[in-house]
Amino acid sequence: MSVNTFSIHPDDRSRLIKATIEAKEFAYARYSNFRVGAALLTTTGDIIKGANIENASYGGTICAERTAFVKAVSEGNRSFTALAVVSDVASAISPCGMCRQVIREFCAQSMPILLIPADYDKRVAEGDVTGGVKETSIAELLPDSFGPEHLDLPRGD
Amino acid sequence: MSVNTFSIHPDDRSRLIKATIEAKEFAYARYSNFRVGAALLTTTGDIIKGANIENASYGGTICAERTAFVKAVSEGNRSFTALAVVSDVASAISPCGMCRQVIREFCAQSMPILLIPADYDKRVAEGDVTGGVKETSIAELLPDSFGPEHLDLPRGD
Amino acid sequence: MSVNTFSIHPDDRSRLIKATIEAKEFAYARYSNFRVGAALLTTTGDIIKGANIENASYGGTICAERTAFVKAVSEGNRSFTALAVVSDVASAISPCGMCRQVIREFCAQSMPILLIPADYDKRVAEGDVTGGVKETSIAELLPDSFGPEHLDLPRGD
Amino acid sequence: MSVNTFSIHPDDRSRLIKATIEAKEFAYARYSNFRVGAALLTTTGDIIKGANIENASYGGTICAERTAFVKAVSEGNRSFTALAVVSDVASAISPCGMCRQVIREFCAQSMPILLIPADYDKRVAEGDVTGGVKETSIAELLPDSFGPEHLDLPRGD
Ligand SMILES: [Zn+2]
Ligand SMILES: [Zn+2]
Ligand SMILES: [Zn+2]
Ligand SMILES: [Zn+2]
Repeated sequence: MSVNTFSIHPDDRSRLIKATIEAKEFAYARYSNFRVGAALLTTTGDIIKGANIENASYGGTICAERTAFVKAVSEGNRSFTALAVVSDVASAISPCGMCRQVIREFCAQSMPILLIPADYDKRVAEGDVTGGVKETSIAELLPDSFGPEHLDLPRGD
Repeated sequence: MSVNTFSIHPDDRSRLIKATIEAKEFAYARYSNFRVGAALLTTTGDIIKGANIENASYGGTICAERTAFVKAVSEGNRSFTALAVVSDVASAISPCGMCRQVIREFCAQSMPILLIPADYDKRVAEGDVTGGVKETSIAELLPDSFGPEHLDLPRGD
Repeated sequence: MSVNTFSIHPDDRSRLIKATIEAKEFAYARYSNFRVGAALLTTTGDIIKGANIENASYGGTICAERTAFVKAVSEGNRSFTALAVVSDVASAISPCGMCRQVIREFCAQSMPILLIPADYDKRVAEGDVTGGVKETSIAELLPDSFGPEHLDLPRGD
Repeated sequence: MSVNTFSIHPDDRSRLIKATIEAKEFAYARYSNFRVGAALLTTTGDIIKGANIENASYGGTICAERTAFVKAVSEGNRSFTALAVVSDVASAISPCGMCRQVIREFCAQSMPILLIPADYDKRVAEGDVTGGVKETSIAELLPDSFGPEHLDLPRGD
């Protein structure tokens, strides 16, 4: 029997989704006009918010998810229970590959990743209990991934 | 019946794998000591090689796969039939998330991506016809991906 | 007469340097073994700390300075008075080009950037009043820079 | 007496500028609509062209200058005599910080970097012998830079 080690308390889930939507407010999406918010739930119950911070060079842009991770890790948090992401578009948006690679560095394969539609609150108000949230994991989003352990493998001749 | 639009001619497949292994020779892996080679096969039969080019800032590093893509696109090639990747470790190594996102920008979901073990030639010489190559696709490596079309979606209130 | 609009109160300067050195403790420098700490002083007197957060892909690495910026901006702070940076090496280390580009996005050309030697505290204890701190600015570190305004320029034929 | 080791033959200079302008044609500037071309002159007289290749994630974008460098290095060229850059805007545009850091990895401090205005050909046709080209170097564009040698410095206690 497999035990889900990542069951999130409904209150934490609500707090996390609320924080994710709030986080979007501080996006600096000057070039894409595509605001994204993210939030991490730590194993100690803390929530760390992130937003996308763009750059005139485009390549210097840092997504909401990675913002949340570097905030958390730089404050000493490396142990996470869930991640949530939201944008301004109605459908639930999934992290880009760069963010998936950073999630891979710090999270368990099965940690819940919640993809929140922009109209989550409206959906809930209208009686949709799930609010349109899609739940996934890094196992699903970045299969057969490259990770820290590969750098330790012996090099051939 | 589904038709595989990406059947690669065995000769092209051999050429591609050979080029990928050669490409690794020009890796600039000064910091990781982890050399990677990549090669793209275009629809016109050309092969474009890439290697990882690292940077003292670490964040400025560009992987072998992305090197191959920017080489190809900057020469006017945006139509690809297959990608192959090899490193110096015995097991077949998979692209990082950043590279998967760049593959996503330019390739069809089902385009073959060949992951080549470092000892491919030895395996083939020893009678392993597949050479240990693992075949995958961006559909498999970056499921539920974020892509160009999402930036065109209408933003909510 | 030129007025320095960025005179930092000595107390704030001390707080900023102390925070920068503390920030380094949470670096995730698994691959380079080169820890860096950074801290931003906001116009409201708040201090936001950053550390370098590396990634197995190398290219996914985010430096201490950029960590501090995305933390600040994602919390609603976009108005800064000073930035400070420290590493584990004796000499004062300067930001990489990627970080300079992010500083360029959010800071005035003349905003003080303090480069702190790792042995700052020891130097001060030994009577060096400056502690070996080197003061610079983005005007000096990224001359003739590319910035947001260039993206608004009319394109030629 | 200081000897300029980087005097470029006028023919090479012309070839380089022409290649830079041509390179721009293959830019993939889908998101910024800001096309950039770059070209590197190697010590053996070869010219390697680059263009900016953008990505839906924004952060996955690779500039024209970096495209030229990874192309060159992945083909075995690490010895450069000059770099040139052009965009579609009338004024000469300077490399972003990320590109400056990559230039820093592979080029001498005084290697000429030519910033070409978009209307270079028109200027020359109208009798402006310089064509509005601005000449600079990485010493000027990235002063007090972080580089490979810093990663080798001894770490303090
Ligand atoms: Zn992302
Ligand atoms: Zn990669
Ligand atoms: Zn940096
Ligand atoms: Zn650039």
